[in-house]
Amino acid sequence: MATITPETLLEQLHWRYATKQFDAQRKIPAQVWSALEQSLILTPSSYGMQPWKFVVLNKDAELRERLVSCSWGQRQVADSSHYVVFTVRTEITEQDVDTYMDSIAATRQIDKSAVEPLKKMIESGIVRGLNATQQQEWASRQAYIALGNFMTSAALLGIDTCPMEGLDPAKYDEVLGLKGSGYATCVACAAGYRAASDKYSQLAKVRYTAQQVVENR
Amino acid sequence: MATITPETLLEQLHWRYATKQFDAQRKIPAQVWSALEQSLILTPSSYGMQPWKFVVLNKDAELRERLVSCSWGQRQVADSSHYVVFTVRTEITEQDVDTYMDSIAATRQIDKSAVEPLKKMIESGIVRGLNATQQQEWASRQAYIALGNFMTSAALLGIDTCPMEGLDPAKYDEVLGLKGSGYATCVACAAGYRAASDKYSQLAKVRYTAQQVVENR
Repeated sequence: MATITPETLLEQLHWRYATKQFDAQRKIPAQVWSALEQSLILTPSSYGMQPWKFVVLNKDAELRERLVSCSWGQRQVADSSHYVVFTVRTEITEQDVDTYMDSIAATRQIDKSAVEPLKKMIESGIVRGLNATQQQEWASRQAYIALGNFMTSAALLGIDTCPMEGLDPAKYDEVLGLKGSGYATCVACAAGYRAASDKYSQLAKVRYTAQQVVENR
Repeated sequence: MATITPETLLEQLHWRYATKQFDAQRKIPAQVWSALEQSLILTPSSYGMQPWKFVVLNKDAELRERLVSCSWGQRQVADSSHYVVFTVRTEITEQDVDTYMDSIAATRQIDKSAVEPLKKMIESGIVRGLNATQQQEWASRQAYIALGNFMTSAALLGIDTCPMEGLDPAKYDEVLGLKGSGYATCVACAAGYRAASDKYSQLAKVRYTAQQVVENR
């Protein structure tokens, strides 16, 4: 185990903030980005279904500029080192479940019949139990686990982030060519390094107290 | 800064898994729990609104047994050290926004008039822009950021967790006395230490590959 101390965790969670201005010159080193990409992939999800695809923009500057204009002009979209668009399945089909079952069977080197009970559970709970709108919402909630995991992982590595809900998902889908792909834009997150000039980095963090938001029973 | 290495992050993300069997004898030390409670409180949320309350069960054994029966009999609810029920606001009112504005003004020692533009933005986007169902769903997504942050924070501290969607939110609300409180059960998470006998701890982690879920542009 490679655990860290409570002090280290808290220092980095206090250090992080929603970075508005990134240093457009600084890029996340490949080895650090690789760990952050893995943090996305390793995110836990309901039933382990991973109903997502992470679109990472770090090369195509023109594409990022186009997304700025679908994001109320927010420059984090273009100026951050890596910009992650969290997309989710627009519906959950029997095929999705089957693909996942194949993945379990292959990884754990077991016969597919062994995962039949899980398959039936997901089919009944999600594929038949929810309509398409609910399926996409269920998938979106999972993407928010990935968002939380990603921001915390980044903070611990000393990487700044800015979660982005202020964007037009339909326009993103258009710009990213997602229409008809079975995936839709859910939320996004910019990652990189704060600019020295970002005045938000100096503001005191605003949080309710434990008395206000934690109830012990 | 108290950053950690990519190797440390990845080792702990690989170490974590959805713990099904907790060691009911082991309790999270107070100092470690205190950091995890802070990780919940420090979670980023849309506009910083924190539309949540975290109900932490670690004392009332009888109450936890009652929740087991609203959770498909899953023993994690009772056997973990701390069981966190993530509850969210059932609607977002002008009062919520006003309380938040007070909090910003007090923390940053600024006049409330300085936060008027933010207030108007949240009122238009959330209070008037969404109906109650959408407001609760918006709040639920934020709670899932907290869930992701909490599980990652726990893994880094060597604390096991099990995210719990398999529960009956309406029955939880009843058992926890949330009806009429303005908060409703969204999701839960057990935290503590894996039992030596938990066979799930030995299973290979199943994840799609980067080729399958990451698209670089």
